[in-house]
Amino acid sequence: MRIALLGGTGDIGEGLALRWGRDTDHELVIGSRDPDRAAERAGDYRATLAERDVDATIEGRENSAAVVNADVVVLSVPPYYVADTVDAVADSLAAGAILVTPAVGISSDEDGFHYRPPDTGSVTDLVRETAPPDVPVVGAFHNLPAARLADLDADLDIDTLVLADEGSARSTILELTAEIAGLRALSAGPLANAPEVEALTPLLITVARYNDELADLGVTFQ
Amino acid sequence: MRIALLGGTGDIGEGLALRWGRDTDHELVIGSRDPDRAAERAGDYRATLAERDVDATIEGRENSAAVVNADVVVLSVPPYYVADTVDAVADSLAAGAILVTPAVGISSDEDGFHYRPPDTGSVTDLVRETAPPDVPVVGAFHNLPAARLADLDADLDIDTLVLADEGSARSTILELTAEIAGLRALSAGPLANAPEVEALTPLLITVARYNDELADLGVTFQ
Repeated sequence: MRIALLGGTGDIGEGLALRWGRDTDHELVIGSRDPDRAAERAGDYRATLAERDVDATIEGRENSAAVVNADVVVLSVPPYYVADTVDAVADSLAAGAILVTPAVGISSDEDGFHYRPPDTGSVTDLVRETAPPDVPVVGAFHNLPAARLADLDADLDIDTLVLADEGSARSTILELTAEIAGLRALSAGPLANAPEVEALTPLLITVARYNDELADLGVTFQ
Repeated sequence: MRIALLGGTGDIGEGLALRWGRDTDHELVIGSRDPDRAAERAGDYRATLAERDVDATIEGRENSAAVVNADVVVLSVPPYYVADTVDAVADSLAAGAILVTPAVGISSDEDGFHYRPPDTGSVTDLVRETAPPDVPVVGAFHNLPAARLADLDADLDIDTLVLADEGSARSTILELTAEIAGLRALSAGPLANAPEVEALTPLLITVARYNDELADLGVTFQ
């Protein structure tokens, strides 16, 4: 499978690239608005994996080039760039490509971190409304700790929730997620359930802030 | 410590009564609008604990009688009864009594379970606005699986989040919670963070619905 990670130069894009690079044989393409930055980061990830004797297929390209022939496109960009990023790549998507959105709208104040969805109701819905109608949209990876994901020495042992309206796209992303060691993929039903899934992300940051022994938190359902 | 569990005849009230009854020496008072029902359930809980050779102090009383001399009052009633329940007992609260609110506003539809807070922003805020100004309010126990909590053979190994604006009330409830075996109490900061804490409850029910191997879910932050 070919996976494009747009915004794959940082945050959870880096961790997903390194984990899929280590744990699977999928072809990975790092996307960025800046193709040089994409190529540089792809080289960094290959080098990180080579130190572990993993020969991963990771390229770097400008976003609209990165999605060409990709089976799965992960939009690991900040929420305020999500709609523009979808617009920028929509015409280049392969037939059947699945768009995956992990972004969450968060604000912070003196009390903690708060869920601030866009007017559509959730970032996941915003992607659904922005994407071409025939492109399946899946919400996933909202609640992953970015630094821990990118640290290949760190154990995950956490869950991630997958939202989808189409069964085939859901299954593909559930399977692709479960291929990462230590990550359990659970269905959270249709995209309409996105607000509660997205709202968990600011809560994780708040809980880490108020409990000194906890940092870079994930969650497990048990 | 004397703990009144209003609405303690069902849902998480039952589980908290049984767990505190088994794991601590606190005096427990089951509150209900119907004093006979309260007394009957208190007797049931004592009997359940007696089968395990636990001699627990559990009485049953009408709500406003139940809170007299209680150090902690848990409002384990449905969200639409919370304000009326606070009004009904406000004049009977002991000086320094802490009000604890676990209620969450939830709606369900064909997709899943959704967070539907009252106009105040959260049920926790509704309690804060309804309670006398000098009574400390703490949010806790929102995300506990009721049936598992009430099954003393079931291991918990889950977390619960505690919201409070006053440090002393927070500490009291964190300690009281951690006295239940298998339950880790984490601070989630001030009451202003209640929406994200409350929104986790419908998500837990949704996740259980869409994953056959999971039921009566709690959560751990790790």
